[in-house]
Amino acid sequence: MDYTHLNQVREWVGQQQADIAYFSNFESVHYLTGFGSDPLERVLALVVFPNKDPFIFAPALEVEVVKATGWPYDVYGYQDHEDAFKMIAENIKKRDTNPASWIIEKESLTVDRFEAIHQYFPAAKFDADATEYMAKMRMVKTPAEIALLHQAGRDADFAMETGWKALAEGKSELQVAAELEYASKIRGVVGMSFDTLIQAGAHAADPHGATSDIKIARDELILFDLGTIYQGYISDTSRTVAFGKPSEKQLEVHKVVLEAELAAQAAAKPGITAAQLDKVARDIITKAGYGEYFIHRLGHGMGMGEHEYPSIMEGNDLEIVPGMTFSIEPGIYIPGVVGVRIEDSVAITETGAESFTHTPKELQYFD
Amino acid sequence: MDYTHLNQVREWVGQQQADIAYFSNFESVHYLTGFGSDPLERVLALVVFPNKDPFIFAPALEVEVVKATGWPYDVYGYQDHEDAFKMIAENIKKRDTNPASWIIEKESLTVDRFEAIHQYFPAAKFDADATEYMAKMRMVKTPAEIALLHQAGRDADFAMETGWKALAEGKSELQVAAELEYASKIRGVVGMSFDTLIQAGAHAADPHGATSDIKIARDELILFDLGTIYQGYISDTSRTVAFGKPSEKQLEVHKVVLEAELAAQAAAKPGITAAQLDKVARDIITKAGYGEYFIHRLGHGMGMGEHEYPSIMEGNDLEIVPGMTFSIEPGIYIPGVVGVRIEDSVAITETGAESFTHTPKELQYFD
Repeated sequence: MDYTHLNQVREWVGQQQADIAYFSNFESVHYLTGFGSDPLERVLALVVFPNKDPFIFAPALEVEVVKATGWPYDVYGYQDHEDAFKMIAENIKKRDTNPASWIIEKESLTVDRFEAIHQYFPAAKFDADATEYMAKMRMVKTPAEIALLHQAGRDADFAMETGWKALAEGKSELQVAAELEYASKIRGVVGMSFDTLIQAGAHAADPHGATSDIKIARDELILFDLGTIYQGYISDTSRTVAFGKPSEKQLEVHKVVLEAELAAQAAAKPGITAAQLDKVARDIITKAGYGEYFIHRLGHGMGMGEHEYPSIMEGNDLEIVPGMTFSIEPGIYIPGVVGVRIEDSVAITETGAESFTHTPKELQYFD
Repeated sequence: MDYTHLNQVREWVGQQQADIAYFSNFESVHYLTGFGSDPLERVLALVVFPNKDPFIFAPALEVEVVKATGWPYDVYGYQDHEDAFKMIAENIKKRDTNPASWIIEKESLTVDRFEAIHQYFPAAKFDADATEYMAKMRMVKTPAEIALLHQAGRDADFAMETGWKALAEGKSELQVAAELEYASKIRGVVGMSFDTLIQAGAHAADPHGATSDIKIARDELILFDLGTIYQGYISDTSRTVAFGKPSEKQLEVHKVVLEAELAAQAAAKPGITAAQLDKVARDIITKAGYGEYFIHRLGHGMGMGEHEYPSIMEGNDLEIVPGMTFSIEPGIYIPGVVGVRIEDSVAITETGAESFTHTPKELQYFD
């Protein structure tokens, strides 16, 4: 851990004329310090000053883990019966008696915790928000992060192919999901990054659907959407495959989605905007007559989480640059008839896009 | 759904001299309306007035699901490109032009969302917090809730026994976890309520430990801690079993924990306080010479989540009453030597405690 990003944050805090920045989002703490832990209802914070050393505040059980990362600054632990925010305030006041201008993470800090901090600094201003700054900083990945995303992608490929092989008439969607998750765990995957989605036949057209006890039947399409976690970084991929012989209509819809996905992936490179990239896929689907059935954005940024910047959608004029990582996932969902989605997540390079997943996207047949 | 609790909330809002209560915790919405959904980064709210009809505000995709629950009041949906808080404010103003005194859920509402609401009601007061009121209301379960917890408990029993049968020399903790989770999914369990914990041998003494690739070896104890979800309600149970022949020391520690668990479960009935109940188990462990190794509270309330009221710990003078549901989980963790925890979750009846799980607690031997 070289703390480049942490040092950038310290500089930024000074540029903002702020006296202190309080990071409460565990992903921010992970990103800036190398210490990754979701403390759930317990308190975790990284406190940064422009001209004084930062500190980490964490549950007592985690203190040794923080130290083991090589963290060169202070780390303070608290036990459940102690008043965490009082301790945080004391440690802040040791460094700066009365910081007047604060930056907080408004998207993750809850009102009760905000008030718990505020009471110790009643005259301070808490107007500034680090949420967007952190989202933009995390949007462009380092080579080390991209390497982790590739590893997560390889695990996703394994999970996907395992799911395909598990398809059998009369087996439920849930059973296929259980089988691919089981095999992934045996392989060493620590967890799925979201609930594995498997939707058979017309069920795949239900955008609100979850993996259910619907049984796999012959001659339909099956939609898979899954992701795995590797050292805090995730994968996210979708494929739609055939079990038996799909109808002409289903084949046509798959063909259109595949064309849209491949075109968008080919167009994903530095210089294009997020909105333009969305339009590449959307135009193909619209021209084929299915525009009204492509009811979501083309993709979302991903890294530690699956809802990072950039959002690949209409209206987002953000320019794509090297190091961005996001999903490309066009879909067509005709209620009661057919649902198809095909998705790779990619890293933008100097000249194009490199996918984290490599299972075939052309329609695969199982029986 | 008879909306008894919702009606109590409306009455309470009036008693508090408040004009409006804004519920943002999805578990609160589930509890009060019967509509259960975790919208993640999307907006879900239940807005309650003392003398006007409440409404639900939800992602557009969820509106039909809300209606299907029989919800007799308004439900408003929003799409991702719409301004959710502007729409919420408009619908509030249709009912009360300028509510001056608000109750919010400070433990779940984030600062950015609070500010998004506040801007439409700049002169209003947001001092009051519904968090503790809701926690106390949810603490005493209805018979219908207790029936769901019993079903979740039966699934946990199945998962536990499946895990025991999967034990084999050289198999990793993760593999055993994968096998019991797989079998649970095949049985129809929609998900585990937390990451299944399996710790073999001395690893079980690490209170920070997670299920790992440590291999099961002969002649040691294996700790299992797991839970399942059934219709939004969870189970939570721990057992420590023998693989081969444990040492005398390990046997003794298991005996002490078992004695503490049984004594606490026998003492769990209306009239005792949470602190007294914790002490029943703690005294037994302390007298046996292991007090310093019982490093957590005796238990926690559970229902929809695993961190509900009551907290069964020193200093909590809350009196136990019928309908409370909580875990009883004494443990002894001697670093590098042995870790044992035994846990049932129970419902308090008029005369005692009824466990949701029924696998044997006496030391079970596998080979």
